Amino acid sequence: MKQDIYNAIHARVATEPFADTMGLKLIKVDKGYSLVEMQLTHEMENIHGMAHGGAIFSLIDEAFEIASNSHGTMAVALNMNITYIAAPRIGDCLRAEATEMSKTTRTATYSITVKDNEDNLIAACQAVVYRKNKLLPFLKV
Amino acid sequence: MKQDIYNAIHARVATEPFADTMGLKLIKVDKGYSLVEMQLTHEMENIHGMAHGGAIFSLIDEAFEIASNSHGTMAVALNMNITYIAAPRIGDCLRAEATEMSKTTRTATYSITVKDNEDNLIAACQAVVYRKNKLLPFLKV
Amino acid sequence: MKQDIYNAIHARVATEPFADTMGLKLIKVDKGYSLVEMQLTHEMENIHGMAHGGAIFSLIDEAFEIASNSHGTMAVALNMNITYIAAPRIGDCLRAEATEMSKTTRTATYSITVKDNEDNLIAACQAVVYRKNKLLPFLKV
Amino acid sequence: MKQDIYNAIHARVATEPFADTMGLKLIKVDKGYSLVEMQLTHEMENIHGMAHGGAIFSLIDEAFEIASNSHGTMAVALNMNITYIAAPRIGDCLRAEATEMSKTTRTATYSITVKDNEDNLIAACQAVVYRKNKLLPFLKV
Repeated sequence: MKQDIYNAIHARVATEPFADTMGLKLIKVDKGYSLVEMQLTHEMENIHGMAHGGAIFSLIDEAFEIASNSHGTMAVALNMNITYIAAPRIGDCLRAEATEMSKTTRTATYSITVKDNEDNLIAACQAVVYRKNKLLPFLKV
Repeated sequence: MKQDIYNAIHARVATEPFADTMGLKLIKVDKGYSLVEMQLTHEMENIHGMAHGGAIFSLIDEAFEIASNSHGTMAVALNMNITYIAAPRIGDCLRAEATEMSKTTRTATYSITVKDNEDNLIAACQAVVYRKNKLLPFLKV
Repeated sequence: MKQDIYNAIHARVATEPFADTMGLKLIKVDKGYSLVEMQLTHEMENIHGMAHGGAIFSLIDEAFEIASNSHGTMAVALNMNITYIAAPRIGDCLRAEATEMSKTTRTATYSITVKDNEDNLIAACQAVVYRKNKLLPFLKV
Repeated sequence: MKQDIYNAIHARVATEPFADTMGLKLIKVDKGYSLVEMQLTHEMENIHGMAHGGAIFSLIDEAFEIASNSHGTMAVALNMNITYIAAPRIGDCLRAEATEMSKTTRTATYSITVKDNEDNLIAACQAVVYRKNKLLPFLKV
């Protein structure tokens, strides 16, 4: 049952347009949890030649989206708070890991961290969703 | 003098790799201020077929980056807090406007809002930079 | 009708235990809006002899609580993001002003600023409530 | 040496005016860490008869202040992001635990959680300080 949800999410992310644009790869989804990877490319450089905050955030948001939808019902982002801790190197493969801190009928809270190849903490995020009473539309019934 | 900084930022953003990837267009830069546009495309859709949070945030981050670097010295993002208010339509052209709330020698605070074609508020962001005592490297001396 | 709500909130805040503890004074409540004052006293000093962040935040939270409950139905705080901009002086009277950025059936967003006697910006806050479908229990029907 | 710092902080908090006002008790301070307790009293009730957000935040801020000053140099709060997860009961003793997520010469990041008597998560906070190159003034040399 849960495995069906996780399989459906894996399949959906594999064809998600923005995941394709950014090279986001879903490694693992579990109950209130996800692990996502992204390679930092030259296309993601900002005006200082460093990784653009939007690229790092996109990775975080993907992990958050997957973890918060892992219960099989739709969750929509309300608020995200990101703290940038270290500047990653272009070329590195970043990993975002999302874990659930709390969940009620209507809202849920997540902690998401981003680390580089050498396990350095790059960014930390705390995020809240509003949970809809509605099954994920792409689940086969 | 200030105009030289603004011209240099315009030129730099025009060749910024991530701005090109995301279709980010700098409309105006001024002292502690910027206005940036982005067209929401199908490539930016998430697993629900809506605009990915990472895409909306990328637009916000670009406006923030430009406003905070508009004083001619390097500013690096420390913290960003985004609240999602309404879901924009794919195809819409979004505008992010960044204004400076405060500035000291070491830190500065910005308010960034995102609106759609019809002036609906899509997202609101409050963000802090650490200001380095270092000229923007791409300014011609 | 609206004036009845505002009067009821004024009366309720006048007997609110924490407002009494902290010396919080409601100056004005309007639709999605409030203005609250607090005198910084020596009792609010932290280990550095400066105003404790908890005292400044209490003022912000009071303004937020009142503005978000001003529609006559219960609102509960979900997330608050505060940026400290300048250190106020003990003895100063601080004013917090809360304005509504957005409101839907279920959530609403507020911007709250704190200023000192001389109109210097002390802190800025962005905050989100969950709106219950329930009248304020202290409204007389 | 470190123990001297921790002893000085314990002594300072014991005479901190706001800690006295709010009944904040420092249980433990360690490197980048602190544990603080506070009893929720009727004086902390808001207009709904629940614990005021300002009271819960004061506890969090105290834990944050102590953990970020535990290195022996002054740290000042830049940004705090709090998510309220559950409403605690008046009468409960709340515990806030602050842990350090990152630290550089100039900034450091903390995660602070608040739990009640029964270990329920009440609130979660992510916070950033600016670190001054200045010894804690109340350390005896």
